[in-house]
Amino acid sequence: MKPINDLVNPLLTDLYQLTMIYTYWKNGRAGDSAAFDLFFRKNPFGGEFAIFAGLGEVLCFVESFAFTDEQISYVRSLMPQSEPEFFQWLRKLDCSQLRIDAIREGTVVFPRVPLIRVEGPLCVAQIIETTLLNLVNYPTLVATNAARFRMAAGFDKVLLEFGLRRAQGPDGAISASRYCYMGGFDATSNVLAGRLFGIPVRGTHAHSFVLSYRGLSDLRERMIKDTTGHTVDFVEKVLHMRTTLGGNSNEEELAAFIAYAQAFPENFLALVDTYDTLSSGVPNFICVATVLKSLGYEPVGIRLDSGDLSYLSKRARRMFADSGEKTGYDISGCLITASNEIDEDVLMSLHKEGHEVDVFGIGTHLVTCSAQPALGAVYKLVEIDGEPRIKLTQDIEKVTIPGRKDAYRLYGSDGRAILDLLVQHGDAPPVTGKRVLCRHPFNALKRVYVTPAAVVPLYATVWESGRGPDEPVTLQKTRQYVLEQLNDIRADHLRLNNPTPYKVSLSDTLYGYVHDLWEKEATIAELG
Amino acid sequence: MKPINDLVNPLLTDLYQLTMIYTYWKNGRAGDSAAFDLFFRKNPFGGEFAIFAGLGEVLCFVESFAFTDEQISYVRSLMPQSEPEFFQWLRKLDCSQLRIDAIREGTVVFPRVPLIRVEGPLCVAQIIETTLLNLVNYPTLVATNAARFRMAAGFDKVLLEFGLRRAQGPDGAISASRYCYMGGFDATSNVLAGRLFGIPVRGTHAHSFVLSYRGLSDLRERMIKDTTGHTVDFVEKVLHMRTTLGGNSNEEELAAFIAYAQAFPENFLALVDTYDTLSSGVPNFICVATVLKSLGYEPVGIRLDSGDLSYLSKRARRMFADSGEKTGYDISGCLITASNEIDEDVLMSLHKEGHEVDVFGIGTHLVTCSAQPALGAVYKLVEIDGEPRIKLTQDIEKVTIPGRKDAYRLYGSDGRAILDLLVQHGDAPPVTGKRVLCRHPFNALKRVYVTPAAVVPLYATVWESGRGPDEPVTLQKTRQYVLEQLNDIRADHLRLNNPTPYKVSLSDTLYGYVHDLWEKEATIAELG
Repeated sequence: MKPINDLVNPLLTDLYQLTMIYTYWKNGRAGDSAAFDLFFRKNPFGGEFAIFAGLGEVLCFVESFAFTDEQISYVRSLMPQSEPEFFQWLRKLDCSQLRIDAIREGTVVFPRVPLIRVEGPLCVAQIIETTLLNLVNYPTLVATNAARFRMAAGFDKVLLEFGLRRAQGPDGAISASRYCYMGGFDATSNVLAGRLFGIPVRGTHAHSFVLSYRGLSDLRERMIKDTTGHTVDFVEKVLHMRTTLGGNSNEEELAAFIAYAQAFPENFLALVDTYDTLSSGVPNFICVATVLKSLGYEPVGIRLDSGDLSYLSKRARRMFADSGEKTGYDISGCLITASNEIDEDVLMSLHKEGHEVDVFGIGTHLVTCSAQPALGAVYKLVEIDGEPRIKLTQDIEKVTIPGRKDAYRLYGSDGRAILDLLVQHGDAPPVTGKRVLCRHPFNALKRVYVTPAAVVPLYATVWESGRGPDEPVTLQKTRQYVLEQLNDIRADHLRLNNPTPYKVSLSDTLYGYVHDLWEKEATIAELG
Repeated sequence: MKPINDLVNPLLTDLYQLTMIYTYWKNGRAGDSAAFDLFFRKNPFGGEFAIFAGLGEVLCFVESFAFTDEQISYVRSLMPQSEPEFFQWLRKLDCSQLRIDAIREGTVVFPRVPLIRVEGPLCVAQIIETTLLNLVNYPTLVATNAARFRMAAGFDKVLLEFGLRRAQGPDGAISASRYCYMGGFDATSNVLAGRLFGIPVRGTHAHSFVLSYRGLSDLRERMIKDTTGHTVDFVEKVLHMRTTLGGNSNEEELAAFIAYAQAFPENFLALVDTYDTLSSGVPNFICVATVLKSLGYEPVGIRLDSGDLSYLSKRARRMFADSGEKTGYDISGCLITASNEIDEDVLMSLHKEGHEVDVFGIGTHLVTCSAQPALGAVYKLVEIDGEPRIKLTQDIEKVTIPGRKDAYRLYGSDGRAILDLLVQHGDAPPVTGKRVLCRHPFNALKRVYVTPAAVVPLYATVWESGRGPDEPVTLQKTRQYVLEQLNDIRADHLRLNNPTPYKVSLSDTLYGYVHDLWEKEATIAELG
């Protein structure tokens, strides 16, 4: 499998990866055995969780990793003083000697638990750093954002991703569509994302469409076929319906709706706020939708793109219902879509005020993750030739947990996750029904005993001896897995505001090991 | 010319573009003559200007626009009820009948002045909307951000873009590197961006590199060649220098610096904050740099990636100077690079406190535009078959100025721009030395007379009869143009905080025309 985007190739990296591996190579250290952890330190959006995404694309990158001759000559031009043999060696470099373990894509994850562990020759494990971070950072961020929008909107709503025009670059948009779907959205407006990933694609028309009609004279066709195949004068019927309903709505808009209904009688959805939502858009929709209904079609609904969405959706719903009493056709089940600058706060306040929106179309705030546009995932060396490595820093939150580690999710008897436990790699896993001491990584006073009702190891080997999974996990399956977990993880951890922190813990042995290393390594400043 | 990214193709669009043009086609309106404006309504980042970017890529897209058979079948699967002839017609669609006028890429631009004007058959002009917005929105946003960072850092500093790992998708990163350079950065860490656009590429090493060295025993090579070609024992010389300087620095770090210097004696730049910046990193750098200097090389400098950048840079600069007195080698000109979570505020506060940083490496906040991660550029129908179109809205700021328009930049006798004036398309341009009334688009009381010392038309035709420019403008040339303007536009408009608004105005004729249309079109609500 190749990456979706041709730009994902070995040159999509920081120059310093190349200067570092040149130094290693020159120093005879290219093959030193190294272990790196890819993890993030802080949950995004002020929440207490993230959704891990991007692994599938990482594996495509690793599988296809190889420099071309043309790429080698470019690298050579950047490092003209380097020994020619290096470039011959670089030309043959691939990821076959790496072993990669990872958490399953789509898993609800927490800070400091490595998402991906990379082991193998120092040079190879190092050179993929930047690309892996790029392929995990934004996907994880936007999938998490999508899951949060899903929770804010409610599981009974339809969520559409509409971000293509505002996304950060063409691929910012393609990635957004892919990972928003993974995070729990239902469809996208992005046609290319639909084709590449099998995501359902949705869309209707824009204000410009409505504006392009200057009246009924722009309708060069008056007829429509009903569901039995009979041709009828659609324009006449709509105008008659408008009289029945006593409407005085904008005729330019009505013409646009008629044209759209003629083109998509089975899929009629109208944008109703071009002129005036309640005095024109909704009445025009009702005329056209009712006539379609009388011809055997099921009109879809309306889209609101401005104004007070709570008020307008409730009024529109009421107008749908009232119209049925006058016309004898029930269109009260038509859907109401809302789509104007929607973010988490808007969803929550709509929820509080009450609304009749069935479908949300969400763009800018979703895809650019405006509440926090970057996830700070990092890729850190934790072991070299079997020795743990640690970068000390004044900022305790930034300290890396050294050495190779395994991770387990411990579950309570209610089937909910209690905490994630990190242990030294190779140590015996925690055992179901057996009490285990779990320690906060930095605070000696924070300790809990957990007797897990179930223990689930978080890592699986996803790349070894040059081979990845036989069959990539489908996007649809990962999305399903995300949605299941949003119901499985304790609600107070997933809560959007003031969530309860989830305890990522160290085993007592790992805690002791790490703190001994810190004692040994940290210099003590001299004052006075 | 093709777009840089294969994902930029006719499917990179919202589905509603296809449903709209199907409706037009079915209605016999595919060839109606339409005019669209692409513009933004509000300057980003609380500023009073933006840098227009993305036009080159737009032209590549327009030039290569054509559906493949495979794309057509996918579209057909999304619109299964549509008439088969539509897809035959769609297969032949291209942009040859469009005419596109645009402001020069890299121009300092202001709200409501169309950046791109598209005229031609309704269907073609409509279907490119989403892709054009995607190709302009983020480039303009990030180029503007880069220009702001340039102004905040000062024109004498070197600015490096380091955002690849945190950017929104692979292409978010490639676009970021390209347009940050356009906006006034000097180089990028992104190797692929270097290859694609000829941007200078820069980089050294990471913390993991320093951590990977466990001591001098990891140095499998002790020697180095000096600039005359003589081989000397580098390790011995460095250790001797360390004694001379009385150092007690971390030996693991020293080993890493020695290895890097051996690999890049002409390009030695050390990351000095892995263990402790002032007690280890800087002293180790000084040892290695001084020995390199004694061997005839010019060491480059250090990089600070944590801590108080003002204090550390000043201390480091002083340590460079002091070392010269002990060693007899002057390394005081070595560069200090800083690179930790730098944003506009950090730059301004460094400026206030004083600092010795020569080079800034800027990532996350630059490329994700964290201060405002989306520009709301829109694409609006302004005319159809010669008739102006206007979308009315309660929100006056969102009103579109109808009809086709020309735009001129009026300059004062000091050579600085006074304002941009929009006139009806085809109207006589303002004349140098002749007083012209310039009106605020919405506020009848805001009027000024301007007697321009120079008048520059803002639009040029960039696409006509299926042809774009013979020679695309180089990125380097556009970057130069941006930098020149940052010195040319009045400083109070460009100021980062509380800038003076720049007056985008309408001619008296256009003002009257627009306001008559509003009077005619807007419904008046009935109260009581």
